[in-house]
Amino acid sequence: MAKIGIGVIGLGRMGRVYANFVAGQLEDAELVAVSDPQPSVLAQYSVTTAEDYTVLLADPHVDAVIVTTPTHTHREIVIAAAQAGKAIFCEKPTALTLRETDEMIAAVNSAGVLLQIGFMRRFDRAYSEAKRQIDAGVIGTPVMIRSIGRDPYRTSLEYADPSVSGGLIVDMGIHDFDVVRWLTGDEIQRVYAETAALVYPELTTVGDVDNAQITLKFESGGLGNIEVSRTAKYGYDIRGEVVGTEGALQIGYLQETAVLTLTKAGVRHDVVPHFPERFGPAYTAQIAAFVTCVRDGKPPAVTAQDARAALQAAIAATRSQHTGQVVAVADVAD
Amino acid sequence: MAKIGIGVIGLGRMGRVYANFVAGQLEDAELVAVSDPQPSVLAQYSVTTAEDYTVLLADPHVDAVIVTTPTHTHREIVIAAAQAGKAIFCEKPTALTLRETDEMIAAVNSAGVLLQIGFMRRFDRAYSEAKRQIDAGVIGTPVMIRSIGRDPYRTSLEYADPSVSGGLIVDMGIHDFDVVRWLTGDEIQRVYAETAALVYPELTTVGDVDNAQITLKFESGGLGNIEVSRTAKYGYDIRGEVVGTEGALQIGYLQETAVLTLTKAGVRHDVVPHFPERFGPAYTAQIAAFVTCVRDGKPPAVTAQDARAALQAAIAATRSQHTGQVVAVADVAD
Amino acid sequence: MAKIGIGVIGLGRMGRVYANFVAGQLEDAELVAVSDPQPSVLAQYSVTTAEDYTVLLADPHVDAVIVTTPTHTHREIVIAAAQAGKAIFCEKPTALTLRETDEMIAAVNSAGVLLQIGFMRRFDRAYSEAKRQIDAGVIGTPVMIRSIGRDPYRTSLEYADPSVSGGLIVDMGIHDFDVVRWLTGDEIQRVYAETAALVYPELTTVGDVDNAQITLKFESGGLGNIEVSRTAKYGYDIRGEVVGTEGALQIGYLQETAVLTLTKAGVRHDVVPHFPERFGPAYTAQIAAFVTCVRDGKPPAVTAQDARAALQAAIAATRSQHTGQVVAVADVAD
Amino acid sequence: MAKIGIGVIGLGRMGRVYANFVAGQLEDAELVAVSDPQPSVLAQYSVTTAEDYTVLLADPHVDAVIVTTPTHTHREIVIAAAQAGKAIFCEKPTALTLRETDEMIAAVNSAGVLLQIGFMRRFDRAYSEAKRQIDAGVIGTPVMIRSIGRDPYRTSLEYADPSVSGGLIVDMGIHDFDVVRWLTGDEIQRVYAETAALVYPELTTVGDVDNAQITLKFESGGLGNIEVSRTAKYGYDIRGEVVGTEGALQIGYLQETAVLTLTKAGVRHDVVPHFPERFGPAYTAQIAAFVTCVRDGKPPAVTAQDARAALQAAIAATRSQHTGQVVAVADVAD
Repeated sequence: MAKIGIGVIGLGRMGRVYANFVAGQLEDAELVAVSDPQPSVLAQYSVTTAEDYTVLLADPHVDAVIVTTPTHTHREIVIAAAQAGKAIFCEKPTALTLRETDEMIAAVNSAGVLLQIGFMRRFDRAYSEAKRQIDAGVIGTPVMIRSIGRDPYRTSLEYADPSVSGGLIVDMGIHDFDVVRWLTGDEIQRVYAETAALVYPELTTVGDVDNAQITLKFESGGLGNIEVSRTAKYGYDIRGEVVGTEGALQIGYLQETAVLTLTKAGVRHDVVPHFPERFGPAYTAQIAAFVTCVRDGKPPAVTAQDARAALQAAIAATRSQHTGQVVAVADVAD
Repeated sequence: MAKIGIGVIGLGRMGRVYANFVAGQLEDAELVAVSDPQPSVLAQYSVTTAEDYTVLLADPHVDAVIVTTPTHTHREIVIAAAQAGKAIFCEKPTALTLRETDEMIAAVNSAGVLLQIGFMRRFDRAYSEAKRQIDAGVIGTPVMIRSIGRDPYRTSLEYADPSVSGGLIVDMGIHDFDVVRWLTGDEIQRVYAETAALVYPELTTVGDVDNAQITLKFESGGLGNIEVSRTAKYGYDIRGEVVGTEGALQIGYLQETAVLTLTKAGVRHDVVPHFPERFGPAYTAQIAAFVTCVRDGKPPAVTAQDARAALQAAIAATRSQHTGQVVAVADVAD
Repeated sequence: MAKIGIGVIGLGRMGRVYANFVAGQLEDAELVAVSDPQPSVLAQYSVTTAEDYTVLLADPHVDAVIVTTPTHTHREIVIAAAQAGKAIFCEKPTALTLRETDEMIAAVNSAGVLLQIGFMRRFDRAYSEAKRQIDAGVIGTPVMIRSIGRDPYRTSLEYADPSVSGGLIVDMGIHDFDVVRWLTGDEIQRVYAETAALVYPELTTVGDVDNAQITLKFESGGLGNIEVSRTAKYGYDIRGEVVGTEGALQIGYLQETAVLTLTKAGVRHDVVPHFPERFGPAYTAQIAAFVTCVRDGKPPAVTAQDARAALQAAIAATRSQHTGQVVAVADVAD
Repeated sequence: MAKIGIGVIGLGRMGRVYANFVAGQLEDAELVAVSDPQPSVLAQYSVTTAEDYTVLLADPHVDAVIVTTPTHTHREIVIAAAQAGKAIFCEKPTALTLRETDEMIAAVNSAGVLLQIGFMRRFDRAYSEAKRQIDAGVIGTPVMIRSIGRDPYRTSLEYADPSVSGGLIVDMGIHDFDVVRWLTGDEIQRVYAETAALVYPELTTVGDVDNAQITLKFESGGLGNIEVSRTAKYGYDIRGEVVGTEGALQIGYLQETAVLTLTKAGVRHDVVPHFPERFGPAYTAQIAAFVTCVRDGKPPAVTAQDARAALQAAIAATRSQHTGQVVAVADVAD
């Protein structure tokens, strides 16, 4: 069987990771084309290159595309890729609005192509084992969930600008909103968010914050809490906890290297520094899963509807942030 | 120097623990009298006994009293003890209303006696070490705090009745409200609570719930989250986390016995079963500290104002529970 | 029923701990007499006191004695106590030779009194839970055991002198020899020891060392390893591990206070400082068990034969240390 | 610069892992040829293939070879590869005798080619971080070391046969002998080993055992302990511990997946199943390091002398196993 031809659109950090992974480690796929506006970046690749992504989309050797461009370009590229009949992997978030997301979904549905969104936590060994145990009934029915996402440093002010990133809750928290929906199998009914710029007050100059505490009420009645933070000076700290009617699960870890140092100062170990160390295998596992779905004609593990639902809840929490009110998720329409 | 004569009023579980501790392990104090309405309980003690606590209060050998009666009786007993000139240790909560608490404080102030409230977590080694590190600046300025309190089973419906216990948030959560104030040195400005009876729906018949997720905003701008639950089937789980501008602290533990069992089923260890195992030393340490304050004429580590502030925040969260609104703590007046 | 009258002989550190425990926390026993050569120490006690222990032994109110004098005095005191008809708790080791131990055992047997030896690890919650699991078959049949005992600092040279303490292996390692016999239910057949003074070379001036690695072969064929060290600069580190045909147990812990400190320097926690913190409850639990055995006329959990067997193995290892040869335990006769 | 052409000789499990790694993930190298006696295995590769390894050695595109054939073939292949001027990576152990190892070293030295041996633990993140901390003086001077290697199941009896594998101590323990030399920077002076077939008595039919406890004395005076076992029913358990004059390091971990399951049965997590999960990244990291050494003309991190020294100590321990005597490492000559 012929290998699936993959084109990567956008050769930033993650785009390069995915391109290398497809080129070197996937049996069922091959990297056939890459696209990026910067010629110097393209020069490093021996496959077909194009500054204009539409050239890549016109390439008949490209069966599927990986879209890792800035969020505001997702809508245009995904719609064009769908119209070109390509299977699509698109980084999270789909877009900053439901309206754009819906346009992307409509184009994909109309073209009958596959669209998978980059919620890589679902492919992390710890999170997927937790999901397996929940589905197996190990903790009974989930009734309370918490998801914590802490970054070790703030982003640039340019990126923090909510018109670019969607703001802290959409940009970082969308992973947590996806995780809580996925692990509980439940939908978020309403949210309340408290936020503040506690360590980096300069974030307020662009309208962003560095910490958020979000309370969740699920449709089934269950409760939840999401914390998003850019102020974990000690490292990258991603954790989840699910309490069920018969037990609980704790997901995640802090220690990067399996060495304990014991001195008069006590016992010490290091901390996961950032996301490439923590989720490196998950990032590539989601691409492998995408290729498998394309190969087998199966629906993706993370659908555009999942992405839409997580975005809707994240926008609801962002509205709560700004209004000080509890916000029903269903009230967010665009 | 003569030992401080201690009278214990109320010989339920904690009253008996305190009486035994005073009788056997305190150098500076001696148990001189106990009081309880049940003659059969009194029969086990070789000190002066009284079914009527006012008899105990009239005993000149009693320098200080430990009040461990049901919450609704605290006001009357504490006021009488103050008027009798006794130093007072009173279990949490002071009362179910600010009004009653204020009457107790007024009586104590008027009599010039000492009143310490039973927030034993402050005397736990882990919590007090965390406080020490925060005060030493190890994590910079606290900006985010979370406090989790999970019980392994629900109380009786009679006790769960909010007119008796104050409801889940006041009954259990008051410890968490005290801890977050104490560790941050900050006051809670407003709260939002989501609650539900998720495992024990019968609690709704008396107006109570079994889970609460509470979002906090502090006066300095900091954020917080309190979780209170009666549905931790796996054990007694009390934890705290404080994130500061330069680091974070995690407080608490799950493992009761220092044995790991490694079999084909994986690695297993046990869990702290309930509060006597977790906080036994803290319960008695607070009594020792109380005796020291009485002996040295020093103010207690946990004041009536602390108890009032924790109660006010817990009542605010309970109102949020019932109204679905964000509640400013200062708006709670009685 | 009358309380058991306890006399404590030797008011050093452990003697005072035991005396206070008996005086304040035991229902079935009361402290009736203490003995110590130093009048200033006796002055702190309100019970009958005697500089000469034979006076205490002549006291008819003393039903049982706790012997916490220096090791070289154990033989004389235990024999006298047996002849006086007292039940006896004696700190480990019984003596520095099998000959003396046998004389003590003979006296005790002849008098028909109870003799319990102070191997407190058997009363530690972790070790006793491990024993329970082994007996319950959780790990199948034990085939390999290791016991590690590390002290945070060296003893005085006066005490290190093997003619006083027995040397590192007898002084410290006797706990480990008792633990491995007890947990496996097996007898040690032969031992090989490598030792060195690696951090405190001054120990060699009195004939002692600061580290020992001892290989064990059990009569059933099982294997073992004992490490004894005085050079754990980071704290007090007592651990055990038992591998069975179906699994394994790890016993012990390092962390003293349940606080993790997370900063840019990594994650840090403290370490158990020394034996009072680690085994405080076990020390007193063994006294409570002793009192129960005296009360009920039952044999003690740790017999003189246990103490003899541990001593014999420790002496065998000490001979291996000095000869460089493998030593059969049965070849140690005195 | 041209890529380094790699030939893989022996396409068993590890050979395939290395071939895939070179083919897909190394920038500076390319897989140009593979060799294996089985045509069916060769059929899966699109590079030059040969049933006879001498054909591969004659290929001028092959700059370096990776030898992953059975141990008894190492000598012949390594000598031939050296004579063909190839840089050589050879799996551990070099051979089962010092004599053969010395012949390999002589051939490599005579040809002036590089020879790296497959002690992958040195490339594990935890072990290499421990080495870094030791070299940085974090724990002072190492004085005591222990290395534990436990496999979850026994090998086949055919492989266990000491004439094939060298026996338990050489086959498995050689990793531990390398680790203790490397981490301490010290040489082993003498060893004493106790061994037994405790779970798999059938191993004795081929002259092997399933457990070994080995006591070490180093030339500097330091002490050590190595445990090798095939009876860890719970999983793959590789750990090390180094005690220095100022502190200690603990290396290794048990938990495979970062999920804790909390139920009434306690807290549970899984265990590392076997070496591919534990050392997968280390296996490939050592190949990357080998390629870098070849590219830069630098000596390898693990030399043939290292392999010889580890083998010598392992043979000494095996002799101790059979003679019951302490064996000086220097007395092992072939």
